[in-house]
Amino acid sequence: MAAEIVNPRSDSTTEEPFDAAFALHRGGKMAIQATVPVRDRDDLSLAYTPGVAKVCSAIAENPELVHDYTWKPNVVAVVTDGTAVLGLGDIGPEASLPVMEGKAILFKQFGGVDAVPIALATTDVDEIVETVVRLAPSFGGVNLEDISAPRCFEIEKRLQEELDIPVFHDDQHGTAVVTLAALRNASVLTGRSLGQLRAVISGSGAAGVAIAKILIEAGIGDVAVCDRKGIVSADREDLTDIKREVAGFTNKAGLVGPMEAALKGADVFIGVSGGTVPEPAVASMAEGAFIFAMANPNPEIHPDIAHKYAAVVATGRSDFPNQINNVLAFPGIFAGALQVRASRITEGMKLAAAEALAAVVADELSADCVIPSPFDERVAPAVTAAVAAAARAEGVARR
Amino acid sequence: MAAEIVNPRSDSTTEEPFDAAFALHRGGKMAIQATVPVRDRDDLSLAYTPGVAKVCSAIAENPELVHDYTWKPNVVAVVTDGTAVLGLGDIGPEASLPVMEGKAILFKQFGGVDAVPIALATTDVDEIVETVVRLAPSFGGVNLEDISAPRCFEIEKRLQEELDIPVFHDDQHGTAVVTLAALRNASVLTGRSLGQLRAVISGSGAAGVAIAKILIEAGIGDVAVCDRKGIVSADREDLTDIKREVAGFTNKAGLVGPMEAALKGADVFIGVSGGTVPEPAVASMAEGAFIFAMANPNPEIHPDIAHKYAAVVATGRSDFPNQINNVLAFPGIFAGALQVRASRITEGMKLAAAEALAAVVADELSADCVIPSPFDERVAPAVTAAVAAAARAEGVARR
Repeated sequence: MAAEIVNPRSDSTTEEPFDAAFALHRGGKMAIQATVPVRDRDDLSLAYTPGVAKVCSAIAENPELVHDYTWKPNVVAVVTDGTAVLGLGDIGPEASLPVMEGKAILFKQFGGVDAVPIALATTDVDEIVETVVRLAPSFGGVNLEDISAPRCFEIEKRLQEELDIPVFHDDQHGTAVVTLAALRNASVLTGRSLGQLRAVISGSGAAGVAIAKILIEAGIGDVAVCDRKGIVSADREDLTDIKREVAGFTNKAGLVGPMEAALKGADVFIGVSGGTVPEPAVASMAEGAFIFAMANPNPEIHPDIAHKYAAVVATGRSDFPNQINNVLAFPGIFAGALQVRASRITEGMKLAAAEALAAVVADELSADCVIPSPFDERVAPAVTAAVAAAARAEGVARR
Repeated sequence: MAAEIVNPRSDSTTEEPFDAAFALHRGGKMAIQATVPVRDRDDLSLAYTPGVAKVCSAIAENPELVHDYTWKPNVVAVVTDGTAVLGLGDIGPEASLPVMEGKAILFKQFGGVDAVPIALATTDVDEIVETVVRLAPSFGGVNLEDISAPRCFEIEKRLQEELDIPVFHDDQHGTAVVTLAALRNASVLTGRSLGQLRAVISGSGAAGVAIAKILIEAGIGDVAVCDRKGIVSADREDLTDIKREVAGFTNKAGLVGPMEAALKGADVFIGVSGGTVPEPAVASMAEGAFIFAMANPNPEIHPDIAHKYAAVVATGRSDFPNQINNVLAFPGIFAGALQVRASRITEGMKLAAAEALAAVVADELSADCVIPSPFDERVAPAVTAAVAAAARAEGVARR
């Protein structure tokens, strides 16, 4: 609240100079804005009592009118419990707020969607689900964020069952949509179809599982998911429920052993783990491979190494070409879903988002451009329109 | 979301013309606004990853920093369950949203406070309390709104016990603060002290109970609270817990019977009931009485009648002088409490708010001006400063 800017790290043992990120965050990154005037008694008597009463009565009589006369249809709750924040892990709800505010302003900037940070003081799955269900009358959608696996899968599934508004765990599906878009364009660029490709995913958390699912739905030839113990395969006895499910729909080839065994001859590497891959394993991949090393700030395979062996290289970083950035997907996905008042975000809507995202750069494809820049202004409108159309086609649109 | 404006009541049986209130409400009354730029990769790398990570880490290390680097310290949850919305009663959470949005934009307009409508899909006291406790990490304060009595008393009390941020039920305390301010000025104007006055409150809901409490704290001579069955007195056997409590601290005179019995010779009438008072009862009040008939849109005693018998008349309406309007109190009370990061809103802070509000028009007192206009720009700064100072004096300020 104070105007003065101070450096909170000045008492730190590191000799870090004044930091631009702290300066920018002072006072937070967002605010509420009235969109109607309240300048005088006449304004007040329309926006508040007595005028507001007839609007309330009308909604009470016809609940559908809440979508016409409140901000509900355009506002998304950005819900977290602070258990898996960026690469920082379980830092708690308060410490997660800067990320949730960042997400909220990206929703607004890129999708025109209002979003409110809701960082919860509970990590219990049942409590998170019941809390979000109780909040739902105020919101048009729910974006789950930075909730640790495997809890995130159950929370999302149960909320989707209980609510008739879109519930979307961005760490899963946002990443999956953008990855699929980049993979489609890389395939087109190199004259291959997804069905010809065998992919290896390093990481079996929220992103890894969702990427595996969307690649299967999109028709990839085969995909193996790897965790710290190696390839997730049905013969392993240490699998959690979700990994057992993954083992069931991936790895047609029946590969077993360490990730290196899967990489040998693979066409695609997708890193969402934060680990590192030794160069000989990279070198063992098929010719013309795609390497999407998305760990931040340190990609699993450094682009300089990756380029020695791969036809297309992508990372999660903004200072290399082909940045796989969720902001390419979630604003348009929610904007499209909210526009048609979709009751949920279906697999078809996610696939449509990936297609639309890939199509934005269809005419300018190159090894350094398989995915648009986050600041490409064509992205959000294209994704929004494709998702709205897919919602209609799939019968989940309500307007 | 559509730009086109239609009249939702066009199919109504009443021949109501196009309505300005519906037109104003279309699309809602509020939005999220980013307060930092997200124009390019550099902006994005500060407001979101990777820059945001160090801010999150700093808060995880030192939780106090959440007040410096997020919007939390300036954002209030406007929480309702939709059970007592205006005079409309239990219309449910969705239908209450226009009121909650109205409240939110008044918070912003008059107090510079960000506020978010949270209309809950539960009316269970335990569930409301546990839900708000779980939401608390994201908010600097909680404004309870339009929750029916007597549930509202227990909800507020339990939340105040469980949380270390201000929890304030505006229907109780906002009304009480403004009423006390008007009563103070009416007393000064007519050369009397509060201790000389005997008041009658018509209505034993949220507002009636809170007004009785604050008048006692402020030193009123005596006050009797009346419900539909008459004067709330200790001998009655039909009292709820809260009315039994009220009977314990009011009605020193030991009055019994219908409200008319209490009005005979009374100095002050305060109406927060929505009922009506017959003129002979009004005529039976003491000379130079104060009549605050706050029911909306129909005051318990019409000002034309009231003026025949009273020295000072106030209503809840904007088209008569002396409007008792909560917007005179809640924005400044929260702004002051948040400014010093108060752990709660104490009785002393409410009394200070009433004093400051009354003092705004001290130099221009008249029978038609015992309370400032809602649009008097001196109000919010005066209330804010007084509440912040009182919080410090009472030891609940944390900065």
